[in-house]
Amino acid sequence: MSSIEAHDSRGSASAPHIGVLPSGPLNSIADVEGVSVGHCTLAEGAIQTGVSVIHPHPGDPFIDKVPAAASVINGFGKSVGLVQVEELGTLETPIALTNTFGVAAVAQAQIRAAIRADSRIGRAWPTVNPLVFECNDGYLNDLQALAIGEQHFNDACAAASTMVASGSLGAGRGMSCFDLKGGIGTASRVVEAAGRDYTVGALVLANFGRLPMLVIDGHPVGRMLAERAANVKDAKDAAAANSHSAAQTAKPEQGSIIMIVSTDAPLDARQLKRLSLRAAAGLARTGSVYGHGSGDIALAFSTAYTVPHLAEYIELPPLLADQHMDPLFRACADSVEQAILDALWSAQSVTGRDGHRRLSLRESVPDLAQLLKHTS
Amino acid sequence: MSSIEAHDSRGSASAPHIGVLPSGPLNSIADVEGVSVGHCTLAEGAIQTGVSVIHPHPGDPFIDKVPAAASVINGFGKSVGLVQVEELGTLETPIALTNTFGVAAVAQAQIRAAIRADSRIGRAWPTVNPLVFECNDGYLNDLQALAIGEQHFNDACAAASTMVASGSLGAGRGMSCFDLKGGIGTASRVVEAAGRDYTVGALVLANFGRLPMLVIDGHPVGRMLAERAANVKDAKDAAAANSHSAAQTAKPEQGSIIMIVSTDAPLDARQLKRLSLRAAAGLARTGSVYGHGSGDIALAFSTAYTVPHLAEYIELPPLLADQHMDPLFRACADSVEQAILDALWSAQSVTGRDGHRRLSLRESVPDLAQLLKHTS
Amino acid sequence: MSSIEAHDSRGSASAPHIGVLPSGPLNSIADVEGVSVGHCTLAEGAIQTGVSVIHPHPGDPFIDKVPAAASVINGFGKSVGLVQVEELGTLETPIALTNTFGVAAVAQAQIRAAIRADSRIGRAWPTVNPLVFECNDGYLNDLQALAIGEQHFNDACAAASTMVASGSLGAGRGMSCFDLKGGIGTASRVVEAAGRDYTVGALVLANFGRLPMLVIDGHPVGRMLAERAANVKDAKDAAAANSHSAAQTAKPEQGSIIMIVSTDAPLDARQLKRLSLRAAAGLARTGSVYGHGSGDIALAFSTAYTVPHLAEYIELPPLLADQHMDPLFRACADSVEQAILDALWSAQSVTGRDGHRRLSLRESVPDLAQLLKHTS
Amino acid sequence: MSSIEAHDSRGSASAPHIGVLPSGPLNSIADVEGVSVGHCTLAEGAIQTGVSVIHPHPGDPFIDKVPAAASVINGFGKSVGLVQVEELGTLETPIALTNTFGVAAVAQAQIRAAIRADSRIGRAWPTVNPLVFECNDGYLNDLQALAIGEQHFNDACAAASTMVASGSLGAGRGMSCFDLKGGIGTASRVVEAAGRDYTVGALVLANFGRLPMLVIDGHPVGRMLAERAANVKDAKDAAAANSHSAAQTAKPEQGSIIMIVSTDAPLDARQLKRLSLRAAAGLARTGSVYGHGSGDIALAFSTAYTVPHLAEYIELPPLLADQHMDPLFRACADSVEQAILDALWSAQSVTGRDGHRRLSLRESVPDLAQLLKHTS
Repeated sequence: MSSIEAHDSRGSASAPHIGVLPSGPLNSIADVEGVSVGHCTLAEGAIQTGVSVIHPHPGDPFIDKVPAAASVINGFGKSVGLVQVEELGTLETPIALTNTFGVAAVAQAQIRAAIRADSRIGRAWPTVNPLVFECNDGYLNDLQALAIGEQHFNDACAAASTMVASGSLGAGRGMSCFDLKGGIGTASRVVEAAGRDYTVGALVLANFGRLPMLVIDGHPVGRMLAERAANVKDAKDAAAANSHSAAQTAKPEQGSIIMIVSTDAPLDARQLKRLSLRAAAGLARTGSVYGHGSGDIALAFSTAYTVPHLAEYIELPPLLADQHMDPLFRACADSVEQAILDALWSAQSVTGRDGHRRLSLRESVPDLAQLLKHTS
Repeated sequence: MSSIEAHDSRGSASAPHIGVLPSGPLNSIADVEGVSVGHCTLAEGAIQTGVSVIHPHPGDPFIDKVPAAASVINGFGKSVGLVQVEELGTLETPIALTNTFGVAAVAQAQIRAAIRADSRIGRAWPTVNPLVFECNDGYLNDLQALAIGEQHFNDACAAASTMVASGSLGAGRGMSCFDLKGGIGTASRVVEAAGRDYTVGALVLANFGRLPMLVIDGHPVGRMLAERAANVKDAKDAAAANSHSAAQTAKPEQGSIIMIVSTDAPLDARQLKRLSLRAAAGLARTGSVYGHGSGDIALAFSTAYTVPHLAEYIELPPLLADQHMDPLFRACADSVEQAILDALWSAQSVTGRDGHRRLSLRESVPDLAQLLKHTS
Repeated sequence: MSSIEAHDSRGSASAPHIGVLPSGPLNSIADVEGVSVGHCTLAEGAIQTGVSVIHPHPGDPFIDKVPAAASVINGFGKSVGLVQVEELGTLETPIALTNTFGVAAVAQAQIRAAIRADSRIGRAWPTVNPLVFECNDGYLNDLQALAIGEQHFNDACAAASTMVASGSLGAGRGMSCFDLKGGIGTASRVVEAAGRDYTVGALVLANFGRLPMLVIDGHPVGRMLAERAANVKDAKDAAAANSHSAAQTAKPEQGSIIMIVSTDAPLDARQLKRLSLRAAAGLARTGSVYGHGSGDIALAFSTAYTVPHLAEYIELPPLLADQHMDPLFRACADSVEQAILDALWSAQSVTGRDGHRRLSLRESVPDLAQLLKHTS
Repeated sequence: MSSIEAHDSRGSASAPHIGVLPSGPLNSIADVEGVSVGHCTLAEGAIQTGVSVIHPHPGDPFIDKVPAAASVINGFGKSVGLVQVEELGTLETPIALTNTFGVAAVAQAQIRAAIRADSRIGRAWPTVNPLVFECNDGYLNDLQALAIGEQHFNDACAAASTMVASGSLGAGRGMSCFDLKGGIGTASRVVEAAGRDYTVGALVLANFGRLPMLVIDGHPVGRMLAERAANVKDAKDAAAANSHSAAQTAKPEQGSIIMIVSTDAPLDARQLKRLSLRAAAGLARTGSVYGHGSGDIALAFSTAYTVPHLAEYIELPPLLADQHMDPLFRACADSVEQAILDALWSAQSVTGRDGHRRLSLRESVPDLAQLLKHTS
């Protein structure tokens, strides 16, 4: 199977701007200096999947570890590496995203890449902690083919760039979101806290939700589309009346969302855990209630300093005081909400296994712009 | 100081109905059978505070403990009792709400009430675990007066009823929310899961948020009001342009919200913890990003069974399987969002210490209904 | 009721030295510079209880907050303040210890003391987070009398000294441990880590365990005493044979232990949480399996720096790298084990409510020194 | 590379019996009915490693999930699967143990085995959550060879038996413990709780500790051996005097221990989490302070019921009340301590990569029996 690169252009220029905070120049996770992202996409017949990689800085993250922490909002997920991140407050590999059954191959690839860089790992030095997140792309992709191999991780690493592509590519190739085409989305916000400007960026692997739940910038677009589909005039009342049967017949959500948050603010692991939880607020605004079958996980890291592998003492810059974190919290929530929209806006329609097809939001709702103006 | 009862009528009839799920007959936490709520209100000059109590069932909760679990969404709070709830998965007193500096008095009152009911407590039997939540009502109420006494807890217990009053009363008397008058709000939703109807109820003590963040049923009302106040025409762009200074000058949030969730669904403590976290989704939809200075805590309990104090074995009803919890998750998020709106809608304007005054939403925004129709 | 000061002398000179690490000059929690401890003891008839206070430094801990974190090993406990410590990684009051039903009064006293020091608390400033730990001294003390008042906290604060008394005093007055007299114990160890000397101190409020479980420096003293009591020659085999009935008839443990760990090593809250958990190792070596009815909680704080209340940025010293924490872990476990022994060794026999009496270890086992030499 | 089966006989008959509780008939994790264990051992030159598998019951654990919970005592580890166990309280694959760099291959094998059994997994059904624990056997085994393949998991499954072998085999082949040969150990205890007999079993993968820390049934054997090695007469005093330099020069611990606890007691996930934490007590008694570089993880499961994959409601047997769990807690601590001794006693000496050699305890200390009689 050949691996292809389907570099979607960022199609989200026309997406609503969430909130009042300005974005960074790229409106992506790479607005935080040093961060880069690479994708490897597999798109051939029943294989619609891939790997995406986020480098927190240009160096070797095993040698210069990165302060990080995660919030498990709903733990129906198979990510690896979080136990050690929780204990030590650092990550020491690039952050990899892939499909649920690709985790092992990517983790193995992370280990091999670390050994290649530092042959003392697992000998004179401790072992390395691979960090791999996943969503289930089994609707479009033939999960059981176990198509992801170690090389795809390496290819994604090699493709890393600060020009972050989003949409139906990399780990996002086969993902679904609100019964539409999901995938990779990214965004950023710039805020002032304690007298300085800080950037918060987000990159999401969006693979959650049922269409009736979709909310765009406060507009219950999903409900409206459902009502339109049902050709019901007095829709909200009718929906309420029918909610029992609707709740009953709705297929359960088996999706997930991974939300990676970057910042250049000087925060420690405890503070980054606080920051990561605010991803849950951005996620909720899009309609999610963190469904049972969803692995909803947010990880935040800071680029303001590193934790050297061999140091006896760790020199930290002055840390932002907790009571000045509120602007960062808002930036995190807005960035994540925006990144989810970006995933929907940038997505291309994809056909995968057994003829399953997911339409992109823009293809599915050609009059979306109109809808957003008139919905309330 | 005399304690008065300012029974607000439920003024939220005109509030938007959140989502498509139907509410229970009372649209309150007491739609879950057996649950009752009592308030004791202190409203005299600089003392604007009180106590609210939720009885999970009509019996003695020490003898028949109640399965329960909590999620600490942001832990800038001084609640007591959560360590044991986390360990044992039960609560054994009524749930009490009050102001931050009233916690100790109410906890003491909980202990005395339990001893009165069962004199073996602390002698032949273990001690009792008081469960008291709090928000900081110091803007309207003279916190330093430490006005809450043990009797106020007893009075609130004695006033318990299934007709739950909401608004500026009980623990909600002095609370602020989005720079408006906050307080007690309640709501419920009925859903079908695994072939049966279940009710989820919520009662909130809402004391969080700055006005520009307020979102009502998806409408960015707070931003619109801020723009109106600023008399700016092309408001959103301007707001974006000015966001830096706005973020800079915004006073930090020192509020909190306590969200109590009831259900008659047969869930164990682990599942109730999952349910309680969905309160965070409802909270986020109103504009919160779980601000630094906020104690945002959700506790969920089930009335489907009790855990007898002296039993050797605990007989449980068949528990709802986790994969059928999604309707409950939606009901929790919607109930909490609705309950927050109820707190705003039911509130009366209140003047307290040093002439501080909080206007009710309806007094502050007389044309709110119009606004909700036309905002986008 | 008058409050008396029963300053036990440190009677633990003859206790075995646990492990191979040296203690500090005082072998107490106050070997960490700046730490002081005060006790207020109530000892009259059925009232055998008190308050103990640990000052982490000589200043105002609200203004100069102290990095801290806790591990809840078993959460059958009613301590207050841990939610905020977990969120913010700091403590901002002295650490108070008392009986289970005295928590509210002491928390109230903490609040009043903080307000006296800084009248902006709860007005211009956020509220203060009282931090109070407790054990159940109901066997010797009439818990239901609710004898602890706010003044006892103040008296304990006023009595603070770096010469830490241990035994049957302060919060330890009424405590039981291994069916013997328990109470306050303290110890310290000095270790080298990453090229510098650091001190770890511990102070425990020991109120746990049944006699047959007692292990002293590896010697199963409790089992031997039980066997001696049973006048059984081939005791271990017999004990094994009878273990069923023994397990059956053993009264459940309703005790607790609070373990406060100080260090001058530069650690952040995440690292202090790691350190605090090692108290569980020291506790286990004395025979505890963290019984169901026990509130087993450890809190660790560092004196290497403070977190100023009003700072925008927090300046930290270089932090000890995690891979150099092992000596501190050993020091924590050894200090806690030693402190538990100190509580037993320093205790005086006490008679309390209803004629209940707990013998001190030394009174109960006059030939203990012999026993420790010959037991295996 | 061929995979061989080096079935050590249980050599621990002569090990001290820990505590007073009786063991089950096999003194192994398989004394809990339905549990079986299989090993696959690779032992050829520089490859000294393997896979061990614990089947919680004879059926398909994906269809009949097993209530389970874990405690991460120290999280320097790379286990996979714990996020979902924490969320859902069940495991749905056999429990696999292997070396740190074998985790990915074994997880992949778990996925393939589950798909073979149920081809709906990852299609009509959700994905499966592989559960794999690891320790670092890099001293004896050439970790970087990544010798573990998927077949080794299958071989271990196929070898499963209720006659549990322990020692230098399976995942334990290359492990070190207290600078001696570690590996697989197992034990069990039978207790009465609430009127019925219950069994608690433990299986450990023991790979932690430095020799001077070793404690056997309360005897500081490691310190004695260190002293003997140093040919010091008045050893304890000298050790204390030299502790500084000893602490300084000690090589850091890079080991780990995985502790799997089985029981037939009817417990839910919350209670199993409580039970699993008691493994920390057994571990501490052997000399561990949960070193920084150690992944110390305990997982407990119950065989008293299963959670059917497709059920709408889960029928539970009456659950043991929490206040009757103390005998289980003792049984857990004793079983784990005994299982660690079993690992040491059953081990064979092994030579591995670069001529590295670990002596078994019995080979290293031929006069161990004498030592245990005379040490104090």
